[in-house]
Amino acid sequence: MRYKLIVAYDGTNYAGWQIQNNANSIQNEMQEALKRLTGLDIVITASGRTDAGVHALGQVCHFDASISIPPERLADALNVHLPEDISVLSSSLAEEGFDSNRSAKRKTYVYKMYLAPRDNPLKDRYAVRIKGKIDTEKLFEVAKIFEGEHDFKAYCAARSQVKTTVRRVYGVDVSIVENMGSHDILVRVTGNGFLYNMVRTMVGTMLYYAMGSLALEDVLSSINEQDRDKVGKTMPPQGLCLENVVYD
Amino acid sequence: MRYKLIVAYDGTNYAGWQIQNNANSIQNEMQEALKRLTGLDIVITASGRTDAGVHALGQVCHFDASISIPPERLADALNVHLPEDISVLSSSLAEEGFDSNRSAKRKTYVYKMYLAPRDNPLKDRYAVRIKGKIDTEKLFEVAKIFEGEHDFKAYCAARSQVKTTVRRVYGVDVSIVENMGSHDILVRVTGNGFLYNMVRTMVGTMLYYAMGSLALEDVLSSINEQDRDKVGKTMPPQGLCLENVVYD
Repeated sequence: MRYKLIVAYDGTNYAGWQIQNNANSIQNEMQEALKRLTGLDIVITASGRTDAGVHALGQVCHFDASISIPPERLADALNVHLPEDISVLSSSLAEEGFDSNRSAKRKTYVYKMYLAPRDNPLKDRYAVRIKGKIDTEKLFEVAKIFEGEHDFKAYCAARSQVKTTVRRVYGVDVSIVENMGSHDILVRVTGNGFLYNMVRTMVGTMLYYAMGSLALEDVLSSINEQDRDKVGKTMPPQGLCLENVVYD
Repeated sequence: MRYKLIVAYDGTNYAGWQIQNNANSIQNEMQEALKRLTGLDIVITASGRTDAGVHALGQVCHFDASISIPPERLADALNVHLPEDISVLSSSLAEEGFDSNRSAKRKTYVYKMYLAPRDNPLKDRYAVRIKGKIDTEKLFEVAKIFEGEHDFKAYCAARSQVKTTVRRVYGVDVSIVENMGSHDILVRVTGNGFLYNMVRTMVGTMLYYAMGSLALEDVLSSINEQDRDKVGKTMPPQGLCLENVVYD
């Protein structure tokens, strides 16, 4: 039997989704919880890795096992064995042929920032403060450049090993909300898949443009000619959250 | 010279604002930072105490000292010596006769909750999950009962020592926002002052009414006859945040 889980986590204290030596991972905590519950060593597969410090509101995973727990009860049963910063939001029997990684059609990530003269401890766990002056109108303008199918090689960590660096971005939506004297900036990106560091580098590039450190032609050449010198810095992980994964 | 500070803090790891034996407090961290900066032992007074685990977005404090640092620079200078979960948002010279506690005219607290079938680690640090079924319309209805000047004795921890338990509540505003499949419920309360545990007990009483555990007449007698048996439970601290303090 294959089971599907939707999982939320606060990534602050983890080295990311994937199991690693000498560092705690979400996958490890999940598999340990499943072992405490069932006594079995079971590998859990996710829709994709999330990096160290990145959060998730709707990570999707699956695993195969022969267990007697009713599928809908698995969520509560696993949560008993999970730390407070990881929670299974729902559990069900997977549909025929479902694979949380291979069947994923769209993913949405949200990157959160705020504009304020000083750090705000109530925001810093899930957002990044922008220190320079930025022209927020330019964020809306540059967002559209990323939409469509492009070779995002310039937006991918050089050490990454992937078959292709071409990805389709369905939408990049910027929203700005005034909130208690500061401005919260959200960038929501939906695509058919993302390269390692891609969203964080896209957001860094948008900021560089909004700060005047890159021209619109620079950003275009980072997309059209894969020019790595024309991208902004990769933003810190705590602003990023995997919001949801959509399947057919 | 008297200085005024506006301070934000994540109260999770503190025993509240006020200095205590054997427990770390915001006041202690602030005074330690001021000592590291100036070499002086200075007492900092706040608009009021916040309890253990309660957050603040706009706590207001003052202190008296003869120091050579320009008032507007104090915020950044103190932040260098403060832990990441406390941040001075602004600093200035206080106006003649200003006292952060005695001159306070209005305070606004926000209590955050959410309705969802399971815990959400991305919300649990600053909000409380409501587990039972509630009629959210009833929250709007009962909120109005608290407005006006009342004797809130039933809403105050019995051990509390205060001259009077009469307080004026200017407004109790409920807002409900759908957010990624769950509902966020915010209760914003503004008053001329609050008793120990008053906001958390008010919100607990509102919930009991919305869950059907208390009738409207019960809530009325808790206000009009100070009947302690007619209030709900005191809600946990992590949902509460001191949003701002207003002076003349």
